[in-house]
Amino acid sequence: MRQKYSVKVVGLLCTPDPTEFYTEHVDTLNLDFGGIPGDRHYGMTRLSGGREKHFQRGTQIKNRRQLSLVSVEELQSLAERLGVAFTPLPGQIGANMLLSGMDKMTKLPPGAVLMFEGGVALHCEGENHPCRFPGDVIENQNRHIPGLRKTFINEAKGCRGLVASVEKEGKVQVGEVGQILLP
Amino acid sequence: MRQKYSVKVVGLLCTPDPTEFYTEHVDTLNLDFGGIPGDRHYGMTRLSGGREKHFQRGTQIKNRRQLSLVSVEELQSLAERLGVAFTPLPGQIGANMLLSGMDKMTKLPPGAVLMFEGGVALHCEGENHPCRFPGDVIENQNRHIPGLRKTFINEAKGCRGLVASVEKEGKVQVGEVGQILLP
Repeated sequence: MRQKYSVKVVGLLCTPDPTEFYTEHVDTLNLDFGGIPGDRHYGMTRLSGGREKHFQRGTQIKNRRQLSLVSVEELQSLAERLGVAFTPLPGQIGANMLLSGMDKMTKLPPGAVLMFEGGVALHCEGENHPCRFPGDVIENQNRHIPGLRKTFINEAKGCRGLVASVEKEGKVQVGEVGQILLP
Repeated sequence: MRQKYSVKVVGLLCTPDPTEFYTEHVDTLNLDFGGIPGDRHYGMTRLSGGREKHFQRGTQIKNRRQLSLVSVEELQSLAERLGVAFTPLPGQIGANMLLSGMDKMTKLPPGAVLMFEGGVALHCEGENHPCRFPGDVIENQNRHIPGLRKTFINEAKGCRGLVASVEKEGKVQVGEVGQILLP
């Protein structure tokens, strides 16, 4: 694999409990092979949903959606287009890592590996396509702007970040640098 | 995901025991989320080796190399170039699935999904790059052709098949048809 990009961990977030979709900022994430213990998306396997139309809904499949990674640059531009504040956006869309330093991070190919200073490695599973849940949260928290749920789904295409799974366990902290290796 | 190719399961193989690299033909594989129980490459995690130069050797990482998938068309052509028999080749190189019907199967991108009739789904983790082990087996079994170990590593580049991991558990049998979905 070849080192191509370098990113910085600007924020880390997890769900306050597994029943919630939105995430809240924390200083550290302790990751194991299932993702973030206690988080909504934790697990080695999960039940398939509407994204996996090739499986009957509720099929037990490998969990490749353990973490949601978003880019400062992409979300700042998205926030402007939506007319909403940038700061609460990562939490509203359920992100787990806010990274800066890479243009078009959402287009990172499946198979890319993110190696963090503290030893954690994440495997890029591909683009995270916008869905209803974050749109609902954003709409509910910006009642003065009508139709945000739908606008979000359209505007966030191609810039909503990545889904990733844990390749190597460990602790990651805000401020760490990550190297991105391409397959 | 979009359906693109259709393949047929021509052979299924596993290691006779985990200490061996070569594989032997079986009629059925019972797969769980770790791969083929009892096989050399079984596990949800594994220790990194020489292929993962970005990790210190022996690091516990997610096991994405659960199954080796090879193509009849690619291996027939490889066997001709090496001057060896095709029939024993899948076992000699440690393949677990011999598939027919797709040109350049080795180039299937990471993230592609193989859906088999019996319900098993495999996730393509990318190209399997040739290494020393299969070269050793082929050289030992074809003593009349000098230098096969090295010739194998050169000639098998780009046609040695894929590594895959289990996306959905179940049983797969020889003769089944698989649909390949692209990300």
